[in-house]
Amino acid sequence: MKIAILTIGDELLNGDLADTNTAAIASTLMDNSLPVHEAATVGDREEEIAAALLRLAKTHGVVIATGGLGPTDDDRTARAAARAFERPLSLNIKAHDQIRARFRAWGRDMHPRNEKQALLPGRSAVISNENGTAPGFHLKNNLVDLYFLPGVPGEMLAMLGDYVIPSLLERFPDPPLLCQRVMTVFGLAEPEVETRITRHGLPAGVELAFNVEVPIVHVKLRARGIHAQKLVDRSEMAVRQALDDHVVGVDGETLAACTARLLSAAGITLALAESCTGGLIAKLLTDQPGASAFLERSVVSYANSAKREVLQVSQEILDRHGAVSAECAEAMARGVYQAAHTDIGLAVTGIAGPDGGSDEKPVGTVYLAMISRWAAHTERFHFFGNRDQVRLRTACTALDWLRRQAMTRLSGEAQEN
Amino acid sequence: MKIAILTIGDELLNGDLADTNTAAIASTLMDNSLPVHEAATVGDREEEIAAALLRLAKTHGVVIATGGLGPTDDDRTARAAARAFERPLSLNIKAHDQIRARFRAWGRDMHPRNEKQALLPGRSAVISNENGTAPGFHLKNNLVDLYFLPGVPGEMLAMLGDYVIPSLLERFPDPPLLCQRVMTVFGLAEPEVETRITRHGLPAGVELAFNVEVPIVHVKLRARGIHAQKLVDRSEMAVRQALDDHVVGVDGETLAACTARLLSAAGITLALAESCTGGLIAKLLTDQPGASAFLERSVVSYANSAKREVLQVSQEILDRHGAVSAECAEAMARGVYQAAHTDIGLAVTGIAGPDGGSDEKPVGTVYLAMISRWAAHTERFHFFGNRDQVRLRTACTALDWLRRQAMTRLSGEAQEN
Repeated sequence: MKIAILTIGDELLNGDLADTNTAAIASTLMDNSLPVHEAATVGDREEEIAAALLRLAKTHGVVIATGGLGPTDDDRTARAAARAFERPLSLNIKAHDQIRARFRAWGRDMHPRNEKQALLPGRSAVISNENGTAPGFHLKNNLVDLYFLPGVPGEMLAMLGDYVIPSLLERFPDPPLLCQRVMTVFGLAEPEVETRITRHGLPAGVELAFNVEVPIVHVKLRARGIHAQKLVDRSEMAVRQALDDHVVGVDGETLAACTARLLSAAGITLALAESCTGGLIAKLLTDQPGASAFLERSVVSYANSAKREVLQVSQEILDRHGAVSAECAEAMARGVYQAAHTDIGLAVTGIAGPDGGSDEKPVGTVYLAMISRWAAHTERFHFFGNRDQVRLRTACTALDWLRRQAMTRLSGEAQEN
Repeated sequence: MKIAILTIGDELLNGDLADTNTAAIASTLMDNSLPVHEAATVGDREEEIAAALLRLAKTHGVVIATGGLGPTDDDRTARAAARAFERPLSLNIKAHDQIRARFRAWGRDMHPRNEKQALLPGRSAVISNENGTAPGFHLKNNLVDLYFLPGVPGEMLAMLGDYVIPSLLERFPDPPLLCQRVMTVFGLAEPEVETRITRHGLPAGVELAFNVEVPIVHVKLRARGIHAQKLVDRSEMAVRQALDDHVVGVDGETLAACTARLLSAAGITLALAESCTGGLIAKLLTDQPGASAFLERSVVSYANSAKREVLQVSQEILDRHGAVSAECAEAMARGVYQAAHTDIGLAVTGIAGPDGGSDEKPVGTVYLAMISRWAAHTERFHFFGNRDQVRLRTACTALDWLRRQAMTRLSGEAQEN
């Protein structure tokens, strides 16, 4: 059985939008031992969508199409499918009810244009969309399963997981055994990660791949056959030995999620003082539900007046050392720690660029300071990259400090028990 | 003349890597009025690369292929091209010299494996790679031009600009004139945007398309021919009339960038108090260089203690109305406004979910309050979606309030002058 992905939309062919859906679908399928054979992209023209569907359906057992299910005139996927497989569009009552229910839940009237989204090719099964107005549909043509999903990634992925994957696993109950694991690594560059893993060695038959999302390196381990699971488990152990505590998480746990989980588990409370990151550290931590268990406050002290008034940084420190200095970072951390009465106070100040650098303190100069019930530590960094990258590296380093502090507390408790 | 892009590599089909090359190539071609007609992705199997090349060469005048030109065994694009077009591989002296020169420049010996990269299909022109070891090649088959480039984006894009674009413009000296504009819209859903524009009307011959990045709608205007520029200019005016001040920016300006630009231009200073957004508003504003011109501070008051101590929200308000209430939002805004001595104090408090909702205040209930030298305003919202979406809608609404306030001040100044 061969699987093809078809992404649909002019925006993918005129450079307005990079296609992330293909990789996201492929990754989810891979997690279920379902490899993708081919991917294609066409624009919004009905006859070309229809031609691509026919071509892929001729050479594949499964086609997963995304995009072109919206309410507007340039959304033509349902019409193209109707034409390709000679299943004239008709109003699908179930789809119509779902769209109406979605609007009702939002407390709004259904826009007449959204009626169009309930026009589906004959004899299709509706794929419910819990997160938006565009229903998907599932069409069987001869022996080919075609799934049509909206292009909005959040909606598409939910429908893929809720409907398409179970449907595929029902059709192919015994996919070739394949086991994959993705490990999240922070604090080592990709070549160093590869060198350490290669030097340590992996079990034979395990594929190793890397995927870098600066400053994070994802290490992928993959094995096939009846021992796949065992091989990948052993490989994970080997990678953990090779990379030590640079391994942050497994199978999608982000640095922020891991940090939040460990802070909660350790019962540690936190107050932040952010200058150059401008709220990014708090934003990343509060992306996680339940962050209120540990985060008491964050002060984004962008101006010196805020540093003085909210964080009690003295004018003398600002005059003598400047706002980007170890002394200022330390005073900010101490200020927020004392005011908030938390277990940890953490502060960052630096020059994210593009302007504001000097010979002595070039763009990318960042100071981190952490004061806690247990210790105090201040460090100067020089991060590379543009403004976004400097801010992200700073935030990730701060999260990593918190993660390590929480791990130390947890292992201390474990020893005491 | 139709142009196709073919991206090659197992990593694109197993979810390890999202394909950004197609969008980057399409965007560069679009800048030269050369639209892309179709894109496809295949893995590393030689016969499938060959089949895809033959298929695309049959229906297109130009094929741009990337990937599979590396030194390792799984790089099979040159072999596939040789097979597809019956041009047996031979050692290309010019390519060989270039690879050797590249290693010399790096002060390293050429690895024997890299010899393979000089084996090109017969009668190909070498495309120099100034940034890596993999030479590209250009093959003409009947009337079809096929360009083969490495998959590393930096190398690929340089070769595209240096060789492929000039080569295409030589073949097609008068590409159809094409003008495109993207407008960023906030505060109206996609169907409503389309209804308003359609009701207002656009000049004939202008294509209209939409691209939604919730909660933002991108409106795309595109025209061809010698009047393309004029048509698009007139269309932009029409869209501005139809959508009024919901138009945030043009050609890539984001809501946050527009807000930051207008606050700076109006000389307005700002202090934020964020609860449910957890720093996201400050993060979005400080993504923009120069945010220190207007942002004095942001207080992420996640805990009630922070609301009381930093923002002077009274215990009575917290007891009587709760932390998610109009009264609390107002007190937070007033607290940060008075402490920071800025022109505006803006506060948000709400329930982002997934937990914490009640019948009276379900998940998605958010209060915004803004107090300024000019006015005070508090409003209750009910945003739908998951945690991320509620947070993003809240932050964008807050940015929009600031944007409108700055516009009002600027137009007031203009009238006074």
